[in-house]
Amino acid sequence: MKKYSAACEKRLEKVFEWMAEEGIALLMLEDSETRRDNNIRWLTGQPGDALLFLAQVPQAASGKKRTASKSEQPVKLEKSVVLVPWDINIAKLYACNVPLTIIPYNDFGRKPVNALMAAAKLLKIPAGSKIEIPSVTPYPAFLKFVGELTDFDILCRENGAEAAMRKLRSVKNDEEIAIIRKAAKITNELIDLLEKNARNGKIKTEADAALLIQIEARKRGCEGTSFETLAAGTERSFGIHAFPSWTCAPFGGQGLSILDFGVKYNGYCTDVTLTFARDLNPKQEKFIALVERAMKLALSMSHNGTPTRDIAAAVDSLFSKSKKEMPHGLGHGIGLQEHEYPVIRNSSDNEWVLEPGMIFTIEPGLYDPLLGGCRLENDILITENGHEILTEARIIRL
Amino acid sequence: MKKYSAACEKRLEKVFEWMAEEGIALLMLEDSETRRDNNIRWLTGQPGDALLFLAQVPQAASGKKRTASKSEQPVKLEKSVVLVPWDINIAKLYACNVPLTIIPYNDFGRKPVNALMAAAKLLKIPAGSKIEIPSVTPYPAFLKFVGELTDFDILCRENGAEAAMRKLRSVKNDEEIAIIRKAAKITNELIDLLEKNARNGKIKTEADAALLIQIEARKRGCEGTSFETLAAGTERSFGIHAFPSWTCAPFGGQGLSILDFGVKYNGYCTDVTLTFARDLNPKQEKFIALVERAMKLALSMSHNGTPTRDIAAAVDSLFSKSKKEMPHGLGHGIGLQEHEYPVIRNSSDNEWVLEPGMIFTIEPGLYDPLLGGCRLENDILITENGHEILTEARIIRL
Repeated sequence: MKKYSAACEKRLEKVFEWMAEEGIALLMLEDSETRRDNNIRWLTGQPGDALLFLAQVPQAASGKKRTASKSEQPVKLEKSVVLVPWDINIAKLYACNVPLTIIPYNDFGRKPVNALMAAAKLLKIPAGSKIEIPSVTPYPAFLKFVGELTDFDILCRENGAEAAMRKLRSVKNDEEIAIIRKAAKITNELIDLLEKNARNGKIKTEADAALLIQIEARKRGCEGTSFETLAAGTERSFGIHAFPSWTCAPFGGQGLSILDFGVKYNGYCTDVTLTFARDLNPKQEKFIALVERAMKLALSMSHNGTPTRDIAAAVDSLFSKSKKEMPHGLGHGIGLQEHEYPVIRNSSDNEWVLEPGMIFTIEPGLYDPLLGGCRLENDILITENGHEILTEARIIRL
Repeated sequence: MKKYSAACEKRLEKVFEWMAEEGIALLMLEDSETRRDNNIRWLTGQPGDALLFLAQVPQAASGKKRTASKSEQPVKLEKSVVLVPWDINIAKLYACNVPLTIIPYNDFGRKPVNALMAAAKLLKIPAGSKIEIPSVTPYPAFLKFVGELTDFDILCRENGAEAAMRKLRSVKNDEEIAIIRKAAKITNELIDLLEKNARNGKIKTEADAALLIQIEARKRGCEGTSFETLAAGTERSFGIHAFPSWTCAPFGGQGLSILDFGVKYNGYCTDVTLTFARDLNPKQEKFIALVERAMKLALSMSHNGTPTRDIAAAVDSLFSKSKKEMPHGLGHGIGLQEHEYPVIRNSSDNEWVLEPGMIFTIEPGLYDPLLGGCRLENDILITENGHEILTEARIIRL
């Protein structure tokens, strides 16, 4: 606990700089059951279920004495950070020791509009100021904010604070890279254990694989898994994300079985997919060969300066030459969430370009109701001189 | 699979009726990673990751021949259901056999706006018609819909289709009640097993409890748990929702331990919380006594016709007489989601009134960093003559 304070302070500083450039006086973030926002954890250490307010107003406006006239020196900005958690005890334990005020959400009837009105008052936000609310605010809720906070200019933008933080978070700092390396190391230990137990018969069902991951990850100090493990035996591996995610059905029998999992260590996620193959027919062999070729092709392009769309387009093109189609994106950034930025996808609006410090998955996959599915997914770090493959997911032939 | 078709057909019919009343020609629902909407499962059986379009247009407008003039008989409406899943194979397996067209999301570049434009064209929605999009559509996305579909009247309303379905879903039909009874029966078997294993020493850690639930639920045919089990030993039970949700830490030691879990059977959730108590001090005994009194009080008011706000207010008042405060709502409906309607909460905008067929939790709880936490949560069915307590969660004294 309290371990992120230096990083958090620096991040808060960057967001305050961004707010100054954009002329934003008050920024509100929300993490709730229906709309998760890990930026609150990234900025304060608070793991979730909270609102966060960042305010930056001229000192005079905030009621403090001004020591010099405007002409003599630039207006000094008064910064405030207010965390409004659902669970005050959790916040006291996890919120890091940067200067912030904690106010229980209950004090505002657990309503975002009320909390924002109270925050604007408490933080003495001058009338006419720009207040930014989350970009995911539903349209009907947006109307409520605008209706209640008539004295302010309410912004709700796709290209606002969250986009700026998304960009910042897409490049990991040394501390984050170290944490993800540790998470990847644990992931690799689990992969080895999974392979061993599939070979020696200890993993016979999807449940055996899923439960092994659950317990062994936590034994190694993980918070948990990054997402619900997808363990799909040969009868169900045709689903991109099997439903239900795992059952007591057999795993690792004749054909293709998929195991997609990740661990969360100190907040940070890994995400890998193994395919277990046994006694394949020629069509299934072709699936595997194509997926492995796609992975090699994608890796060969994974270095500083490559537009991620080019990588995804190259893989799509490789598959289409064999008259196959991948029904999902090629990859995605990982970090505090299992899916973050950059996106690695062949779509016209994807403008992400790889740079050192980016960590993302590459996960080519092919699926067929009769043949089953094959997916191979590893986590890649872009370095100054190329890339590093952090995880050791592989096709495991039984 | 394919087992919900009769119920789905009836539900689709009700939504079409509602659309006719509201003059909606095309309704779009979306279930995606960031915005879950179980209405798609409720209406079609498709478990998720899909768009759903319901269209209802006059036959002439849909391009078919009209057999009678307007004056002779009412305009016949042409109904269409189009499911646009991310994973076409999962949809083919799970979407029930009501008349619907399945189109892969990939055909629309996995973009909701593109899919809506294509659906409006395919389904021959007349210009000027009302099209309703999800109430949770973010404001920036709403602007895109409005910007691209200029020929239509785009509605995004809190009191729209989802509110109507919320109301419909808050009262369960006989089939749903039977499924939830079965889920509750499995939950009760797990509660007995958890108690037994806590007494005989097989459950020593949070992980022991969490893993037992995971495997035993699936052995009994459940899809999985309703949510990530919250197992918090005495050192962590002060958190409403412990973070991380479970670890390898001890469970059931001296003091108060909380275990909050649910199972998902055939799509439907249960949600219960047990408190394990060992060698309590007088203050902890008071916590338990108060929570048990709160449960009794809430149950005594749980019958047809009671505004749920009154129940929550009575419990808040009971706690405040002892100078305690409950930092969360008293309960919530359960169904395809672990949190649905009615809400059981003491807030001014809560207008829900209990009626037969409603199934919801009552979960009084108190939390203190020094004493730990105590919560007791059961699932209640409102009947014609009162209520039935479906689950057998309890304070377990070790």
